[in-house]
Amino acid sequence: MRDRDGSLLDDDKAVWIQGRTAWLLATLYNTVEPKKEWLEGAKKGVDFLLQHCFDTDGQMFFHVTREGKPIRKRRYFFSETFAVIAFAAYAKASGDEDIANKARDLFGKCIAYATGELKLPAKFSDTRPSRGIGVPMIMMNTAQQLRETIGDPRCDECLPAGQAGIEKWIKEIETFFVKDDIRCVMEQVAPDGSIIDHIDGRTLNPGHAIEGAWFILHEAKYRNNDPHLIDLGCKMLDYMWERGWDKEHGGILYFRDVYDKPVQEYWQDMKFWWPQNEAIIATLLAYTITGNEKYKEWHQQIHEYAYTHFHDKEFGEWFGYLHRDGTVAQPAKGNLFKGPFHLPRQEWYCWKLASPPPLSADGEGSSHD
Amino acid sequence: MRDRDGSLLDDDKAVWIQGRTAWLLATLYNTVEPKKEWLEGAKKGVDFLLQHCFDTDGQMFFHVTREGKPIRKRRYFFSETFAVIAFAAYAKASGDEDIANKARDLFGKCIAYATGELKLPAKFSDTRPSRGIGVPMIMMNTAQQLRETIGDPRCDECLPAGQAGIEKWIKEIETFFVKDDIRCVMEQVAPDGSIIDHIDGRTLNPGHAIEGAWFILHEAKYRNNDPHLIDLGCKMLDYMWERGWDKEHGGILYFRDVYDKPVQEYWQDMKFWWPQNEAIIATLLAYTITGNEKYKEWHQQIHEYAYTHFHDKEFGEWFGYLHRDGTVAQPAKGNLFKGPFHLPRQEWYCWKLASPPPLSADGEGSSHD
Repeated sequence: MRDRDGSLLDDDKAVWIQGRTAWLLATLYNTVEPKKEWLEGAKKGVDFLLQHCFDTDGQMFFHVTREGKPIRKRRYFFSETFAVIAFAAYAKASGDEDIANKARDLFGKCIAYATGELKLPAKFSDTRPSRGIGVPMIMMNTAQQLRETIGDPRCDECLPAGQAGIEKWIKEIETFFVKDDIRCVMEQVAPDGSIIDHIDGRTLNPGHAIEGAWFILHEAKYRNNDPHLIDLGCKMLDYMWERGWDKEHGGILYFRDVYDKPVQEYWQDMKFWWPQNEAIIATLLAYTITGNEKYKEWHQQIHEYAYTHFHDKEFGEWFGYLHRDGTVAQPAKGNLFKGPFHLPRQEWYCWKLASPPPLSADGEGSSHD
Repeated sequence: MRDRDGSLLDDDKAVWIQGRTAWLLATLYNTVEPKKEWLEGAKKGVDFLLQHCFDTDGQMFFHVTREGKPIRKRRYFFSETFAVIAFAAYAKASGDEDIANKARDLFGKCIAYATGELKLPAKFSDTRPSRGIGVPMIMMNTAQQLRETIGDPRCDECLPAGQAGIEKWIKEIETFFVKDDIRCVMEQVAPDGSIIDHIDGRTLNPGHAIEGAWFILHEAKYRNNDPHLIDLGCKMLDYMWERGWDKEHGGILYFRDVYDKPVQEYWQDMKFWWPQNEAIIATLLAYTITGNEKYKEWHQQIHEYAYTHFHDKEFGEWFGYLHRDGTVAQPAKGNLFKGPFHLPRQEWYCWKLASPPPLSADGEGSSHD
């Protein structure tokens, strides 16, 4: 966790960030250039994850000390999904079959969490059951990463009673969360997809839904520009750009209420760095696929806003947290949630998009084999 | 949960707010005027708490539906402490001995949670043990309320191995959390009182510490202006006013870092309504006890800031959440955390302070008996 100038704010470690950083370094190695230091950095992250980030009950931690002693576990499985993509990308880079198997095993565990076969402690009672878009989104992206590195038959599985598969997760998003009548992508709904008319149920996360939009557009491209998926991804982007873009100050707002009522979360109108990164990718990807000038304009708008307000001209990198009006709320460069992921992923993905030949589904550039 | 104009935003119920509201209404009945509607309102809150807010395992819920079905429990016991003060104030108002016994039983349970005899599920591992100021603060205030309504010998208990007692909780705050060398009241420390030099351990909550300051000044007054407690309460106020008052825009900031480093919580520099209420009470109480003009000036400053920025001139009541610069972040009047408590408690307490005869420890004004 780093202060504005890069000095150490706290030597604790976020498990998400170990996985995300190892994924990034291995992916750069696989798709940009086989630099030794990238492979070595990825290995350090993978080793730390394996040695220190799994509890004896098999669940991963969320927050550990510098030496890897546990501080906190959470009641969801994002640590696991980021470890899957780290292991998979590193296995491709290194050719280490043992790590590839670990990625596949852990992916299987994520599927079991996602289907409910494996249970985590519940945060809420059973009174008002709900489903969140986070699970199908992260599963889809984890599967995409797995497919583009070491491959796994479960990514493209399409059983009648399918437990896994990118197709299944996209269907889940489309069926339950995308609301054409009100032009909206919900963050959380009742099990049948109906809107839960309480504060939590009404709360939208435009940056997150826009991230989901580009995961689907990425899939559309993989499937030779599947028209249905192009349409789905573009409308998700359209709906949530309309709701998330701040017409007064620019940038993507953090939360909105589906009926424009007040949102309870305190930071609802702040500008965080990562929703801007997701919108920069989504608009560029939508433009390169469709050629629609609207997406080019949006891309220029969000790019201009983000690099003007988030980029720290003095010490480099991006600030993480701005007030709604664009002033810096706090200047730290890294914490338990902000690490080298969203910004470098955006720069890498957009650079690949803008560079011929276009990014293929198998990744490209040098790899070990 | 209410929108700016009082219309319903969400018909779910916060358990804290049931207890706090019943406490407020019963306290107004006990200390201002025996209005029938206040007693009836308090009874409704007490009945709802008893009928719907206890789980079968004895722990209270945090969030329930309108009908009282459980949505969420949390890993601490504030629902319980607010129920204790509601039951105690209502028992005094109504003369209902059964409710008085329920208040005492539940207070005993809170003591067991506070000492660790009764355990709640842990949020953190045992790697870095800590103690928070929240527990001795809420226990002290709960005991003060109990003493001023139905009385309980445990409030003034002072065993050598004391498990309870206002004296014990004040000692705990003084010994572990008040740091004279750096002029600071910590929010959380290691078990031996040393500062945990990680982001969470460094995070200060000035409004909360200032609330603790006035609980101690209240106790000082009860003990015929005990000079040691006056000194302790005043220095806690001094330290945290220095750290919490926003010299640029006015008002009390939400979080600060003990070493002025960036704070991780996103809303760290916002102005919430309740820290202003606590500072309004603390400065007026310090002034009425000490006659020190500094406190009078601070009181005028914070009062002016708060009534200028938080009061909604169009629809009444206060906004809850302002940006650092004093603009309204969202206009709802009530949610799971903001209900009729901090603002009316402040107005009631300050009105009592400013009205001769001064507030006595037993409460005053009419009561049922």
